[in-house]
Amino acid sequence: MAAEIVNQKDGLESDVIDPAFALHRGGKMAVQATVPVRDADDLSLAYTPGVAKVCSAIAEQPELVDDYTWKSQVVAVVTDGSAVLGLGDIGPGASLPVMEGKAILFKQFGGVDAVPLALDTQDTDEIVETVARLAPSFGGVNLEDISAPRCFEIEARLKERLDIPVFHDDQHGTAIVTLAALRNAAKLSGRALGSLRAVISGAGAAGVAIAKILVEAGIGDVAVCDRKGVVSGDRDDLTQVKRELAGFTNKAGLSGSLDAALEGADVFIGVSGGTVPEEAVATMAEGSFIFAMANPNPEIHPDVARKYAAVVATGRSDYPNQINNVLAFPGIFAGALQVRATDITEGMKLAAAEALAAVVADELSADRVIPSPFDERVAPAVTSAVAAAARAEGVARR
Amino acid sequence: MAAEIVNQKDGLESDVIDPAFALHRGGKMAVQATVPVRDADDLSLAYTPGVAKVCSAIAEQPELVDDYTWKSQVVAVVTDGSAVLGLGDIGPGASLPVMEGKAILFKQFGGVDAVPLALDTQDTDEIVETVARLAPSFGGVNLEDISAPRCFEIEARLKERLDIPVFHDDQHGTAIVTLAALRNAAKLSGRALGSLRAVISGAGAAGVAIAKILVEAGIGDVAVCDRKGVVSGDRDDLTQVKRELAGFTNKAGLSGSLDAALEGADVFIGVSGGTVPEEAVATMAEGSFIFAMANPNPEIHPDVARKYAAVVATGRSDYPNQINNVLAFPGIFAGALQVRATDITEGMKLAAAEALAAVVADELSADRVIPSPFDERVAPAVTSAVAAAARAEGVARR
Repeated sequence: MAAEIVNQKDGLESDVIDPAFALHRGGKMAVQATVPVRDADDLSLAYTPGVAKVCSAIAEQPELVDDYTWKSQVVAVVTDGSAVLGLGDIGPGASLPVMEGKAILFKQFGGVDAVPLALDTQDTDEIVETVARLAPSFGGVNLEDISAPRCFEIEARLKERLDIPVFHDDQHGTAIVTLAALRNAAKLSGRALGSLRAVISGAGAAGVAIAKILVEAGIGDVAVCDRKGVVSGDRDDLTQVKRELAGFTNKAGLSGSLDAALEGADVFIGVSGGTVPEEAVATMAEGSFIFAMANPNPEIHPDVARKYAAVVATGRSDYPNQINNVLAFPGIFAGALQVRATDITEGMKLAAAEALAAVVADELSADRVIPSPFDERVAPAVTSAVAAAARAEGVARR
Repeated sequence: MAAEIVNQKDGLESDVIDPAFALHRGGKMAVQATVPVRDADDLSLAYTPGVAKVCSAIAEQPELVDDYTWKSQVVAVVTDGSAVLGLGDIGPGASLPVMEGKAILFKQFGGVDAVPLALDTQDTDEIVETVARLAPSFGGVNLEDISAPRCFEIEARLKERLDIPVFHDDQHGTAIVTLAALRNAAKLSGRALGSLRAVISGAGAAGVAIAKILVEAGIGDVAVCDRKGVVSGDRDDLTQVKRELAGFTNKAGLSGSLDAALEGADVFIGVSGGTVPEEAVATMAEGSFIFAMANPNPEIHPDVARKYAAVVATGRSDYPNQINNVLAFPGIFAGALQVRATDITEGMKLAAAEALAAVVADELSADRVIPSPFDERVAPAVTSAVAAAARAEGVARR
């Protein structure tokens, strides 16, 4: 049987060796018609001449495009292939399996249609122009695996320019799920967010967004560390993004290494991929929270983290408390699309984190500060909260 | 019941008045996962960590993207909304129902996945750049409803630049089906293509492409008429495209009006939307073929045409011999994608026309020179012929 597969015209040995290849053969998604096209009558409604009336109606009243096409339920999953998973800059073609995966997660978890678009450019202006030109066909744009710092500018310019939601999941998805887990860890420990001092390892897309949302959520203090240590105003090597970061983080005025910053810290959040020595972990405050999210190798191994921390989370599915973006992005877009939001605001992100945390609020334990990705309560809860927040923030169009 | 619909939050009166609106509500298509995502094991294969191995393999061996993603089976249906049906320049949003319709016809008739992309630009350079940047995600590009003469340059530049098939259906789809019908009309009448003189009314996308394919197929002579009459070398008002047209058509050296050109002509092909007076029709050669394809009002009404012609075809589904692009484009892309063709060549187009004509070769009558769009033999026949032609022409990658 194995030999047969290998001998098939298109069969590759890898299909036999690894089930991931076998599963990916032929791709992971398809398009389907949701209306019948069986006979001439069907065709005359779904295509010419019937379709012409619908086109004319939209030409006269442009917002009808949301009612009479799939636009308002389809999201473009856009990448330039520059920062794919932990693989780095592998280019658009090689990034496609991830974008397809994302698209089917959108569908499976949020009921949202999504189309993978891996672009053959890594130029900021060109990416912005390309996505802006595609906007008439989509209800939202999920930016994915675009490297920092370009990802910040691309998202900001597209949010400014377009009247549909634009969301860089590597930033905000991770930030929202992290905040949800932190809320529940604090609740479990009877701590107020305002009493916590956090150290974030990593000042890329995820680190910057996590710092922002934690500050917005009222955490006591956040210090963000890059490879050179704490991002602070006294450094002269900061990018524009990191200078801004220094402006609203690090109230304690720390400088120096990550290890030093950890002394007495209540929270460690790892989105860097480095390794934190156990001696540094040991200096954290008692009852700390360690979210070591690098994949597949957490910055602090969970077995080590558990020796010192009250709550431990990772990015891995084989340990408790997996910080997984799939807990956020399907419901966030489903909620935004439901009310035809023109934007995804900070308030919508905070509402998503609160709703996500609330799902397991009555079942909290050290091994359960965040729901499982397969908890069916998650997407509906996030969807409702995001839709309500969009209305409250005045960005809902219905 | 009708009142209930009208009173719904999003209900529009038009939904009740016209079934085309009711059918279009919510759009006509969706995305579906073709692999399971039910549990953590599924997720670890279809998404992280399993997907990383597939990405890495493609990064090392780029052509694997065709095996392990949906790229090689998905076509971008691209428009700028500038020449939509008979409605003209209605813009990208209003064109979406047509593009979605096209996408579901691709699926229904050819088993080809397709994604509607209506672009927010009508600038030739920007359209070319945008489509080129999207190319890594698609196995082919179907250009649609882009006005002449920009459509010619856009298609030519994209064909030159990309290694996936690019096909402007308004040109070549129409041309292929027209040639197939003409082949069968000639066969039915015992005429050789080389003995026929044709007059084409309309020098836009369809007219130019029909003229080209008829000349390639060996028709005796073709005169193309625009609003000012026969396109001929002695005119000083010709665009670049029409100058080229004058170079390979009108061997008879006609000049003057369409009506004059029709005198003694064997074939009339209407892709203009004007009206030809019956007196001019009456001057055509005996046993002529009249293909009056304007929709919904043929240039020559079929009842009038039948008084003079041996074979009458239209673009309408309620008369015999409907020249419908759906007879061509699904099989053409299905065949091209099957062998991962890098281009759609003239030879592939001619092969598609021959295969399409052959489907009803044994059932020919004046009312049956072309199969019905719902004839299930059509797509497989066109697909096989196009795949074989791609191999013969050296553009197949497998």
